[in-house]
Amino acid sequence: MSDPEPVRRIGLDNVIVADTELSEIDGEKPELLYRGVDAQELAEKSSYEETAYLLWNGELPTRDELDEFRAELDERRGLSRGVAEVVEHAPEDAVPMDVLRSAVSTTQVYGEVGETPRENALSVLAKAPTALATFGRARRGEETLEPRDDLDTAANFLYMLNGEEPDERHAEILDTALLLHADHGLNASTFTSRVIASTESDVISALTGAIGALKGPLHGGANQDVMEMLLDIDESDKDVSSYVADMLENGERVPGFGHRVYKEFDPRAEVLKEIAEEVSETTEGPDWYGMLEEVEAYLREEKRIHEKGISPNVDLYSGTVYYSLGIPIDFFVPMFAVGRSAGWTAQVQEQYDNNRLVRPRAEYVGERGVEYTPIDER
Amino acid sequence: MSDPEPVRRIGLDNVIVADTELSEIDGEKPELLYRGVDAQELAEKSSYEETAYLLWNGELPTRDELDEFRAELDERRGLSRGVAEVVEHAPEDAVPMDVLRSAVSTTQVYGEVGETPRENALSVLAKAPTALATFGRARRGEETLEPRDDLDTAANFLYMLNGEEPDERHAEILDTALLLHADHGLNASTFTSRVIASTESDVISALTGAIGALKGPLHGGANQDVMEMLLDIDESDKDVSSYVADMLENGERVPGFGHRVYKEFDPRAEVLKEIAEEVSETTEGPDWYGMLEEVEAYLREEKRIHEKGISPNVDLYSGTVYYSLGIPIDFFVPMFAVGRSAGWTAQVQEQYDNNRLVRPRAEYVGERGVEYTPIDER
Repeated sequence: MSDPEPVRRIGLDNVIVADTELSEIDGEKPELLYRGVDAQELAEKSSYEETAYLLWNGELPTRDELDEFRAELDERRGLSRGVAEVVEHAPEDAVPMDVLRSAVSTTQVYGEVGETPRENALSVLAKAPTALATFGRARRGEETLEPRDDLDTAANFLYMLNGEEPDERHAEILDTALLLHADHGLNASTFTSRVIASTESDVISALTGAIGALKGPLHGGANQDVMEMLLDIDESDKDVSSYVADMLENGERVPGFGHRVYKEFDPRAEVLKEIAEEVSETTEGPDWYGMLEEVEAYLREEKRIHEKGISPNVDLYSGTVYYSLGIPIDFFVPMFAVGRSAGWTAQVQEQYDNNRLVRPRAEYVGERGVEYTPIDER
Repeated sequence: MSDPEPVRRIGLDNVIVADTELSEIDGEKPELLYRGVDAQELAEKSSYEETAYLLWNGELPTRDELDEFRAELDERRGLSRGVAEVVEHAPEDAVPMDVLRSAVSTTQVYGEVGETPRENALSVLAKAPTALATFGRARRGEETLEPRDDLDTAANFLYMLNGEEPDERHAEILDTALLLHADHGLNASTFTSRVIASTESDVISALTGAIGALKGPLHGGANQDVMEMLLDIDESDKDVSSYVADMLENGERVPGFGHRVYKEFDPRAEVLKEIAEEVSETTEGPDWYGMLEEVEAYLREEKRIHEKGISPNVDLYSGTVYYSLGIPIDFFVPMFAVGRSAGWTAQVQEQYDNNRLVRPRAEYVGERGVEYTPIDER
């Protein structure tokens, strides 16, 4: 078979590198589908674990299947001594994404992840939240808590992080946030996981790479930026609109707005907006949701939104939601990773099922025929 | 700017995703260039550390520059207690690539890698061989040895692994093997490192992903397969040609032959072939080189080489060379990773210098409008 014509596409814009049955981002409607099911409806009626099952298997589980899936996760949530030590001994100023990436990688060294892709994937889904919560406690000097098998992924995480059984509604809210981050087409981290899988490497290697990619500020991070902006507004003596006006004047981008595909609105943001409002009403502290409304109103008034074709995205609301649940700001991107692990693992399996090694080209634009000069003549 | 026309290229064959000044594979001549300098000439006259400097800086170092570079590596070769523990406590059956990936990832948790891309990169070059050698000793129950600042990367590795100062020629040979693996265009692992870097994530994240990709059998691993074949021939009662004949009859691929780009010969294999011959003559044990000659002769006689357009590649000879230097078979792919780290880090820097987020597309081929069914109705 001869090679196809060379094509030059730095950034790979609009280059189709895979077929997928996992998620579809319809920017026109707009809607997000997981295996054909509307993610907004799933957010309302289903759970993160059901959605992970749906992504992996193509169908929502029966009650028995869900119980079995939960049991498989439950038996894997704990960390071996070797992995727990990496996390517990991490300096308190370690970057949580580095801790998460290293913990996921190390589970394979310590033989906790089984042999099959499915066992690998179950281990990541089960252990990543445990590792993160463990680090959250350890850096505050608090003892590690073992996961409980009567709590699901979201509730377990809040319990292991905060040391008390979470408010039922708070656990539900975190569950919904994880669900809304479960898969989202072929972004850079998901693509990373597929490139690694395309060498027939394993799920843990693929997920370790994906976490590393999500760490990049051009990918994850906007939810953290939003919260930092709100905290900064709260501490400043400015009102919201003059703060935002100053940002725009300084040529800064207001985080949490705009999406490459969703032009009208981000369906995930619709769900999280309602939750952010609810959480703002039922928890103490500044009215973060009200501040976000003011930010949005100001941008709309200034016609910054329609001119730039931007509207609130998922990152605008997820930050205040996490914050109100007691999740530290530097855990916001790791929470994204925890939710997205459902999609990453499904995408890796999809890559295995119909694999082709991913091997693009670089164009050599350097010199040729450079003579070697011995060191004493340089 | 509107999006370009959609292009469908599963596997990204012949899709140019980056410009590079780092390495050029000229399959016609054939030759491999590092920054325009012939890699075969560098293998003969230069060193791995000089070559890493060349890839990073575009020019070979003066003696002062090289001394300074060496000093920067020397001060970073040691592992902190936290990272050493991950490696030393790894079970003896842990996969060395998993240990290497986890060690590299964890150096960032334990604050050993500095802040800048260059400091990150220096840390990987310095610490990856230490981590690997430490694991090599630990799994044999031997004490960890500290790196020595009078030895370069290759000599230090052999010293830390085997516990004695290596034969000078052996250290030179390993140095040459590392140099010949330093960079090689945009293979899957290098591409992985660039995709991760394209999110503006850090060098450690990028290298962790690259190691994970190289672990895949479609990428690294052929040098190990060659050595396992030779050991199997040696243990069997067959002669080489009937062994290879049986392989071909069973539809197996003989490892170490053929290259997608180098049609006539692999210039790296030319260098390593000579070394393999030398090592075979000067070390005890079976004549591995002689056996490889017989394998090649048989394939040529059977016209398997010219018919299939295959000839010896770098993996045919590197395995026996490593083996004769006392490097365990399951360290062959990690040695590839150690050498390639020079190129991965250079490519990541090149990506940063002219960055564009890598974000291809997947084509959704799944269902739409699937109705959500409540769990008790499934």
